Amino acid sequence: MGLIRKILNSRSKDEDGNFFVHLQRVLGFKPKDFEVYKVAFTHRSTNIKDDQGNPINYERLEFLGDAMLSAVISKYLYEEAPAGDEGYLTKMRSKIVSREHLNELGKELRLLDYVVSSISKESFGDNVHGNLFEALVGAIYLDRGYNYCERFINKRVIKPHVDIERLEGKIISYKSLLIEWCQKEKKSFYFNVFEDNGNDVLKHFAVKLSIDNKVIAKARATSKKKAEEAAAKRAYFALQSQIENL
Amino acid sequence: MGLIRKILNSRSKDEDGNFFVHLQRVLGFKPKDFEVYKVAFTHRSTNIKDDQGNPINYERLEFLGDAMLSAVISKYLYEEAPAGDEGYLTKMRSKIVSREHLNELGKELRLLDYVVSSISKESFGDNVHGNLFEALVGAIYLDRGYNYCERFINKRVIKPHVDIERLEGKIISYKSLLIEWCQKEKKSFYFNVFEDNGNDVLKHFAVKLSIDNKVIAKARATSKKKAEEAAAKRAYFALQSQIENL
Repeated sequence: MGLIRKILNSRSKDEDGNFFVHLQRVLGFKPKDFEVYKVAFTHRSTNIKDDQGNPINYERLEFLGDAMLSAVISKYLYEEAPAGDEGYLTKMRSKIVSREHLNELGKELRLLDYVVSSISKESFGDNVHGNLFEALVGAIYLDRGYNYCERFINKRVIKPHVDIERLEGKIISYKSLLIEWCQKEKKSFYFNVFEDNGNDVLKHFAVKLSIDNKVIAKARATSKKKAEEAAAKRAYFALQSQIENL
Repeated sequence: MGLIRKILNSRSKDEDGNFFVHLQRVLGFKPKDFEVYKVAFTHRSTNIKDDQGNPINYERLEFLGDAMLSAVISKYLYEEAPAGDEGYLTKMRSKIVSREHLNELGKELRLLDYVVSSISKESFGDNVHGNLFEALVGAIYLDRGYNYCERFINKRVIKPHVDIERLEGKIISYKSLLIEWCQKEKKSFYFNVFEDNGNDVLKHFAVKLSIDNKVIAKARATSKKKAEEAAAKRAYFALQSQIENL
């Protein structure tokens, strides 16, 4: 890395300091190998090469980061969508790592501000934001390994932005979906909610959802609304084959 | 997992024992969560479902394993091919994780032998082998995490099978490359091939490759051709600095 250190001295000490501060804020941890992040913010127009003549810029890190992003999101979907088959999981993953979404993420983190480039940043297209985001993920992997990568993606992508039902574009509320279906099918429904704290310190509510006087699903959560929604969701999956024709 | 344990009791105790022994040999380590591997060897035709009605079979694990495989191979290529740009890396990765290659890997490890299925295994197409390989990688990830996954892929995919020169289509045969070099350099060469079954049930051949009457490399394989090629490859790497100017 000594060589890359020398090569990448295209920022002033002050600029480096600002970059480092911003980077640490974005990452949420202290980088060990600062140099790899410099590569992640170096545009090909700088024409920097190592002593073997290999170009040094963020494009190869994009390749690496894209693969890591895909692995982490796959694991998330595998766990969060136990009812989804392979085709469903693949579709959801490509929605999450869509070009538009990655571009938004890169913009949100103001990554372009810190890019070293020999051409004007105004000439970049929109995709530079997503590319920088991918390269940053690649750099995190090289600096700190898979687990840091996963934590970063959870914090910056999954927690603030991913909502499976919403991605599906179908379902905003399972409760209203179920009510709609019951009305259409002329079935009675009843949410029986009661306080049930069990051994928990927090207040909890339990709910039994009955359709045509038969208990179809139960759930328990920290609010009435959440418990009802959870029960409705379970009922939805239990009745899926009938509801899908809605 | 208690439920899955009950559900997956479709093997006898004896079969489970055999499966466990074979699995451990394939993995090269002791599984912690045996159940997840059972899922990886359960075909959809068994129609097993969990108590939420979600199907339990290896198809979702394929999705996960495919992503992990891709991440590990990407990291390998990133490091091994510093001169390759994003396009090159992407092309090489898809060669390594090609359908044909994954099918070969699955066959080599005899994964199909341990699948639980309600339909005849003869009716499966060739892709079942690759699918099982992917599912196994997914199971390793769930059981032991990313680092075990990486070690397994290094051991089972990269070390024995990945050869960047060959993938690039530059080197089709190390044997012919070596012969060409010997002729140019006016060196004598001799492949001494003999049958050597050792403790194996299958017929095996061993070969000693001598250059200028000095044994340079040895190898052993299931055919004369394979053994010669393997020895030539070893000799190639041993002599690489001299050969590269060829």
